[in-house]
Amino acid sequence: MTNSTQKSEAPERVRDRLDANLTHPFLDADGDKLREECGVFGAINAADASAATALGLHALQHRGQEAVGITSFDGREFYSRRGLGHVAENFSSSEAIGELPGHMAAGHVRYSTTGGSGLRNVQPLYAELASGGFAVAHNGNFSNSQALRSDLVNKGSIFQSTSDTEVIIHLVATSRYPTIADRLIDALRLVEGAYALIVMTPEGMIACRDPLGIRPLVMGRMGDAILFASESVAFDVVGAELIREVEPGEMLQVGFDGEIRSVRPFGSPKARPCIFEHVYFSRPDSYFAGRSVYEARKAIGTQLAIEAPADVDLVVPVPDSGVPAAIGYAQQSGLPFELGIIRSHYVGRTFIQPSDSARHSGVKRKHNANRGLVAGKRIVLIDDSIVRGTTSMKIVEMMREAGASEVHFRVASPPTAHSCFYGVDTPERSKLLAARMELEPMREFIKADSLAFISIDGLYRAVGQKDRDKACPQFCDACFTGEYPTSLTDFRMTEQRAAQLPFADPKAA
Amino acid sequence: MTNSTQKSEAPERVRDRLDANLTHPFLDADGDKLREECGVFGAINAADASAATALGLHALQHRGQEAVGITSFDGREFYSRRGLGHVAENFSSSEAIGELPGHMAAGHVRYSTTGGSGLRNVQPLYAELASGGFAVAHNGNFSNSQALRSDLVNKGSIFQSTSDTEVIIHLVATSRYPTIADRLIDALRLVEGAYALIVMTPEGMIACRDPLGIRPLVMGRMGDAILFASESVAFDVVGAELIREVEPGEMLQVGFDGEIRSVRPFGSPKARPCIFEHVYFSRPDSYFAGRSVYEARKAIGTQLAIEAPADVDLVVPVPDSGVPAAIGYAQQSGLPFELGIIRSHYVGRTFIQPSDSARHSGVKRKHNANRGLVAGKRIVLIDDSIVRGTTSMKIVEMMREAGASEVHFRVASPPTAHSCFYGVDTPERSKLLAARMELEPMREFIKADSLAFISIDGLYRAVGQKDRDKACPQFCDACFTGEYPTSLTDFRMTEQRAAQLPFADPKAA
Amino acid sequence: MTNSTQKSEAPERVRDRLDANLTHPFLDADGDKLREECGVFGAINAADASAATALGLHALQHRGQEAVGITSFDGREFYSRRGLGHVAENFSSSEAIGELPGHMAAGHVRYSTTGGSGLRNVQPLYAELASGGFAVAHNGNFSNSQALRSDLVNKGSIFQSTSDTEVIIHLVATSRYPTIADRLIDALRLVEGAYALIVMTPEGMIACRDPLGIRPLVMGRMGDAILFASESVAFDVVGAELIREVEPGEMLQVGFDGEIRSVRPFGSPKARPCIFEHVYFSRPDSYFAGRSVYEARKAIGTQLAIEAPADVDLVVPVPDSGVPAAIGYAQQSGLPFELGIIRSHYVGRTFIQPSDSARHSGVKRKHNANRGLVAGKRIVLIDDSIVRGTTSMKIVEMMREAGASEVHFRVASPPTAHSCFYGVDTPERSKLLAARMELEPMREFIKADSLAFISIDGLYRAVGQKDRDKACPQFCDACFTGEYPTSLTDFRMTEQRAAQLPFADPKAA
Amino acid sequence: MTNSTQKSEAPERVRDRLDANLTHPFLDADGDKLREECGVFGAINAADASAATALGLHALQHRGQEAVGITSFDGREFYSRRGLGHVAENFSSSEAIGELPGHMAAGHVRYSTTGGSGLRNVQPLYAELASGGFAVAHNGNFSNSQALRSDLVNKGSIFQSTSDTEVIIHLVATSRYPTIADRLIDALRLVEGAYALIVMTPEGMIACRDPLGIRPLVMGRMGDAILFASESVAFDVVGAELIREVEPGEMLQVGFDGEIRSVRPFGSPKARPCIFEHVYFSRPDSYFAGRSVYEARKAIGTQLAIEAPADVDLVVPVPDSGVPAAIGYAQQSGLPFELGIIRSHYVGRTFIQPSDSARHSGVKRKHNANRGLVAGKRIVLIDDSIVRGTTSMKIVEMMREAGASEVHFRVASPPTAHSCFYGVDTPERSKLLAARMELEPMREFIKADSLAFISIDGLYRAVGQKDRDKACPQFCDACFTGEYPTSLTDFRMTEQRAAQLPFADPKAA
Repeated sequence: MTNSTQKSEAPERVRDRLDANLTHPFLDADGDKLREECGVFGAINAADASAATALGLHALQHRGQEAVGITSFDGREFYSRRGLGHVAENFSSSEAIGELPGHMAAGHVRYSTTGGSGLRNVQPLYAELASGGFAVAHNGNFSNSQALRSDLVNKGSIFQSTSDTEVIIHLVATSRYPTIADRLIDALRLVEGAYALIVMTPEGMIACRDPLGIRPLVMGRMGDAILFASESVAFDVVGAELIREVEPGEMLQVGFDGEIRSVRPFGSPKARPCIFEHVYFSRPDSYFAGRSVYEARKAIGTQLAIEAPADVDLVVPVPDSGVPAAIGYAQQSGLPFELGIIRSHYVGRTFIQPSDSARHSGVKRKHNANRGLVAGKRIVLIDDSIVRGTTSMKIVEMMREAGASEVHFRVASPPTAHSCFYGVDTPERSKLLAARMELEPMREFIKADSLAFISIDGLYRAVGQKDRDKACPQFCDACFTGEYPTSLTDFRMTEQRAAQLPFADPKAA
Repeated sequence: MTNSTQKSEAPERVRDRLDANLTHPFLDADGDKLREECGVFGAINAADASAATALGLHALQHRGQEAVGITSFDGREFYSRRGLGHVAENFSSSEAIGELPGHMAAGHVRYSTTGGSGLRNVQPLYAELASGGFAVAHNGNFSNSQALRSDLVNKGSIFQSTSDTEVIIHLVATSRYPTIADRLIDALRLVEGAYALIVMTPEGMIACRDPLGIRPLVMGRMGDAILFASESVAFDVVGAELIREVEPGEMLQVGFDGEIRSVRPFGSPKARPCIFEHVYFSRPDSYFAGRSVYEARKAIGTQLAIEAPADVDLVVPVPDSGVPAAIGYAQQSGLPFELGIIRSHYVGRTFIQPSDSARHSGVKRKHNANRGLVAGKRIVLIDDSIVRGTTSMKIVEMMREAGASEVHFRVASPPTAHSCFYGVDTPERSKLLAARMELEPMREFIKADSLAFISIDGLYRAVGQKDRDKACPQFCDACFTGEYPTSLTDFRMTEQRAAQLPFADPKAA
Repeated sequence: MTNSTQKSEAPERVRDRLDANLTHPFLDADGDKLREECGVFGAINAADASAATALGLHALQHRGQEAVGITSFDGREFYSRRGLGHVAENFSSSEAIGELPGHMAAGHVRYSTTGGSGLRNVQPLYAELASGGFAVAHNGNFSNSQALRSDLVNKGSIFQSTSDTEVIIHLVATSRYPTIADRLIDALRLVEGAYALIVMTPEGMIACRDPLGIRPLVMGRMGDAILFASESVAFDVVGAELIREVEPGEMLQVGFDGEIRSVRPFGSPKARPCIFEHVYFSRPDSYFAGRSVYEARKAIGTQLAIEAPADVDLVVPVPDSGVPAAIGYAQQSGLPFELGIIRSHYVGRTFIQPSDSARHSGVKRKHNANRGLVAGKRIVLIDDSIVRGTTSMKIVEMMREAGASEVHFRVASPPTAHSCFYGVDTPERSKLLAARMELEPMREFIKADSLAFISIDGLYRAVGQKDRDKACPQFCDACFTGEYPTSLTDFRMTEQRAAQLPFADPKAA
Repeated sequence: MTNSTQKSEAPERVRDRLDANLTHPFLDADGDKLREECGVFGAINAADASAATALGLHALQHRGQEAVGITSFDGREFYSRRGLGHVAENFSSSEAIGELPGHMAAGHVRYSTTGGSGLRNVQPLYAELASGGFAVAHNGNFSNSQALRSDLVNKGSIFQSTSDTEVIIHLVATSRYPTIADRLIDALRLVEGAYALIVMTPEGMIACRDPLGIRPLVMGRMGDAILFASESVAFDVVGAELIREVEPGEMLQVGFDGEIRSVRPFGSPKARPCIFEHVYFSRPDSYFAGRSVYEARKAIGTQLAIEAPADVDLVVPVPDSGVPAAIGYAQQSGLPFELGIIRSHYVGRTFIQPSDSARHSGVKRKHNANRGLVAGKRIVLIDDSIVRGTTSMKIVEMMREAGASEVHFRVASPPTAHSCFYGVDTPERSKLLAARMELEPMREFIKADSLAFISIDGLYRAVGQKDRDKACPQFCDACFTGEYPTSLTDFRMTEQRAAQLPFADPKAA
């Protein structure tokens, strides 16, 4: 309920720790990547539900590194534990797991984005309703949460967090339907946007995915236990098997008797899962939308080599996210794949620079040129995407300083020119390089000898479609095309965001 | 909203710190004292409202040592900061105060009693209502909060804390009156019990006290600023002057224009302030109910010497709370006042005992016999109250081991035989020595040569009344008499507490 | 070995904690008291040696509050544990004690004075010598440690701390005598100054006191165990009995067979124990130099009333250290003893002052006038000593602001005009009020209506001597008289300290 | 000086942090790799010496992740700061760097191996000698330090750490030569083993390398500053240029006037640098012994493909350390290089396993099979080395569970059959798989379809030698061959280690 709580436990220590931990292969410490905001995991009818949840979240750590929470239910009571930092920092001790007894548990990893950094916003959110406890873990974002929140407050609801997930809880609490499942459907009918939800009540677990299936959610099995997770890799790590994806618009109810009921309260709109899961968000060892992510990325690299070949000596991935596409590019083009950039896994954001030092030491702390390899060579760099372009520019320059004679740049996604409103952390539109300039100015900005992006149709082909269905695309690709699959109520109502309004955008027009 | 949040920041560290800090004169580390649960402080139209609040709370530290919070308002936004431990640990840095800008602030110190120990229950509580921000700091306890809470949850309200104070916020949020003041009155009409409240809204500060004035609240002035506090000593420390007590049942509204409005929405019932403030809770340098607390305690000691003289060589206070009464006793009886017990100010609860060591080392860590003084002497010990009796027993034995030839015990309050439901932490009734036995068994239990308590009428006389008005006592003295001035709705409805039910008590009958 | 180690574990947290803990009765947070620098405790042949040591040090906490260490020996190995802060913060858990097994243990509490604040300087110091482990805990100060240290470094010794205690270890390590006892005697012959030492070796415990017995050390018994401590109160708390003082110049060796050998390697000079132990350092419930400290302080108050009576209404102690002398003064003069100043036990150093607030809020956080008592009264304040005079001035002014009509000041020691070089933390001489001015200017400085100190002869009489033996005083009273009982080698050799040189002092001449 | 110091600051917190940070590409959380024990960095005549040192150490983080220290000199005083954990956790704030002023600094990263985990053992070690301050950072290990230490203690030296580096300081302190440089040479003549040292004195910086050059040390330049580091990658990150390696047996003295003097006090034995730096320790973007480490590793892979081809569909590296060799292997064999194992960069050691979960979840937390890729394929796994073999076994099994039809294993180094005594953390010899069994039993143990190691001569060829010179090998390869280039005094004198004695080893005979 507090507006701005500053917990008095040494906040700078936490920040230091976070810096020291921004070491994963998918996160750019300079913020020059899009960031998936959340990962969720749930387990019911499992002997060690919270241990499985901790391990599953650990495998989803790349989807949210700043905070983590787990809630469990032992048949009588709910138990919660939350913390800032990584899963391993918070849930690897037997004491921590021991505080979370029971055969049902769900957890959440997240970045602290608009909701602010307090523990209040760490999920699962929990409330005592008249019907009993209600816990929810949510991956996604509602595009009308401000409007709904405002209505609820006017009627006397008191919000404790700034998370849009809390809207669901208040809608459920004030719904007049008799059962929890009906109250939840009643609530979800009012929301617009993207969600993959795991809900726990005293009757069992409910998992559901928005009608367009924008955010991912899969179902698995481990003995008698039923599991849900954002990505299939979480099942590998706990030793479970993948059953199938939760379907877009599907609501699955799993009881303590093991029965699984599937309902589709929102009809059957055509699905549009987020294509960026294939490009960058998911781990390469996950399956998404029926395909191996690694194979999809290699296929994108292959397609990119066909669309935009380069006359060079070496194919060099920008590590680690550019590696699968670079392997595909190298195999297709017959050029040698080489580690021309070495990535350090120790990253800290705020080192003081010695004044004599050369420029771009920041990027060098993370990426260092493999000088012995690239000196005198023509190279093509393969990266998954360009967001602001600042890191790309530094990397090109670093390769030149290391002696590369030509530096070409190929990008395994189309230009990222639009913000996401469905649970992905994007910079303001005005900071997206592709929203600011055309191809040739982009090439000049990053100082490459040549620059090419995969085409939108090429991308669809690489992920197994014949072509992009222009009337009704098979994926959500709004970040590339500006074609948002839902209305954006809050966005339209926000005057101060008018400058970013996608519909006023001449390029999108 | 979480049922059982276990913050992941090393909880045992906090506990250690609390132990190490249980060093104040009014708190018995063995838990053998009643404990006032809270202190409140507020300042409006003050240049440094949060600095004054921090300093004022520091002077009220004895009223609540386990957690502290301050909320401020700068004309646009509310700011909050909370922490476990003492005021000095959380609010003595300029950074901490710098996070709390504005000319209005209120704060709270508390023990973590039934509400549990999480930061969630640390006040001031804050909510964003449709009318804007609403912060409240509360000293006291509602005796029907469970019933009210249950109603609110059924209508869709979601509670984030287990604090009964939160009931007020939801009642205000769902009230249909147009103004905040009217909504607050509407809410308070529904509650039964004791409260001294400081509320902040964007329009100013509201201070109010329950119709019986059970818990204390005073008003002060410092330049243009108006201050409220649980005790007048807080004004001394910030350099302010005491104006007067907030009257029982009075609601004072102070605006940013400096205007002060007093209303009495609950009529004019006869006041019944808590007489234990005079006995033990308030600092001796405070004024309460129009009298110096130090003088009241000395007068109690004087009356006790008249009612229960002792033929001894020395008058020895049980430090520190027994000192003023012992001075009064000594002066009345003409006996020398001497420090026969030396109190250490370093107390830690859980020292391991060396196995060879003599008994009662726990009490010795805090109280040590002044052997050179008491050996061979007849002494009378003066203490403010007896709760469980365990500490009294150990102290008597310690004096005998140190060589005292006779040990008499005099208590500056009547036998404490009933639980408090108005914001004071009392043990279960079955643990109160005076609820378990008559005077002579009590004397045997503590092993004193004689034992006497001041009479209830003597106590009233010492605090300035002619006699206790049996029909309508001038103070709340329920802990001595079992005569509760309000109905006890929650208590009656709670089956599992039936054993303690005061009305079923043969002694009270 | 590090010059200036800054441990990277959040140093400010430790500092906060220390501030919050400067709450004991004997320490003035403004630094306006002399401070005993250390307390020591040792136990041999005790079943729970380290538990007894922790408890004993806890009773000696007032002798050193900033750091604590315990070393134990289990017949095979030595174990150490040290920490910043109080004993209870570091040694109250069973885990902490469990790390210190064995039947012999010794410990130390200290202030971090010139030696700096690092853990390196926390005692007991330990070294692996060729003869085996050697641990030492030291209360006192050597007045020629710089000279000895310089010699040792020139020969190749490497110091790890800045503590003068380490000199002993290197002298023992490089001594050519065959036994540890002889090596220790060889080492101590070279040092000049004050020491009470507890040494542990694989053969047992050695306790010794410098030839003048400047610093205190007592011996006790608990079953089969022999104990040593700075003050007898430590024995009370562990349940042991006091046997006797360790004699000045005596070295006691206690073996694991229980045998106790006493040797006197330094002949029999006349003892000169520190008279300030009676005035302030020791706890009132200790015995020192054969007398109850409480009785000595009362006798000082009695003598002060005879030497310097006051025509007033009330005798008011400056709490807590002035209380025993005030009781003596009141009893002698027939005036009422009253708590005119209330002391808070919650002290934090750095609260921000609200700008509207009255002056002297710092002193008020600790001491508050009991307004209802003193208004309109003539009072005499009794304090144990005046060091800088700043706190005395603030207290006098506070009493006037509270309405006292006359404020007289009586001091239970002679003027403190000289620095101590024997293990007491004194301000630079130029900051001592009595080194800067005569009596009347002192009275003007503190703004009292009258000011008087007890005479030096009166003090000797109060502590049981007929008169001060001018040729060979019975106590070390150098802080009052400038008559240092040893030569001050380091002091003389230090040019930059020349300004404080006592022999150049016209008042001492 | 303490035997066993247990710092009281929550030790488990530190451990948690370390676990969470064991995320680098070169360290196996199961301990199934050899571990380089240290990295060193020094800078003189640099404007921001300590900032450069922090950044340089950060680039060397893979050489020691458990503790870090930096010492600086500002022309007058030395300053030190040490901490547990990573460089970024301890030295990324401007406050930390601000505590280390001056134009000369040196630092050290380390694992806490035999020396124990206390801060005492964190380097640089520092001592105040008669000649002034003396700081030393050491990478390597002396094989006669116990013997030297014993001599020194008998003469009265007191050791504060268990680090063998401290032996140097005492040898210097007790040397009778007049200059520091001569004293250091005098000291180093007595030690046997491996060292790369950076020493700071008030006269400047001294860098030296043992006569065989076992451990690496390079010299660089950044403007006027001269730098030293364990690996050249540290110069890349600070923006400096590599000048050359410090020669085996060379001592370089750099003064504040910029003058560099090179002396060779130990004659000119033939160099034998550690060949494992090429195999695993150094970062691939470093140069070592005149070659790019990346190129060397690719050449090893190439040679391995020639010596031990495999009839498979895919070449799969064990990430991350097996990647360069796998690229070489794939290019030589014409087989596709594919990421068949995905490595997570979030590793925590102690997750509780859900009881239903499949086996080997520990290895899966770090390495997960890329199921979509390997199912139904014949693969060859490329790893840099096999130590205990436990991880190799789990990885082979994981690949089979993921559906690989054949799993072959190729190792880019010869069998590791002997312990290292020169600063590398190796398991007891009895735990080395290759010390326990021949090739075929090893294959059975790890359950691969085939297993091959590169030959020792093949390894020499890959790193640019014609062949291994059997009479006098060009590298130290004792871990493969058991041919130790120095005598092993401590090892021989240690009876309890007799079982491991390499000379008693039938295989080495």
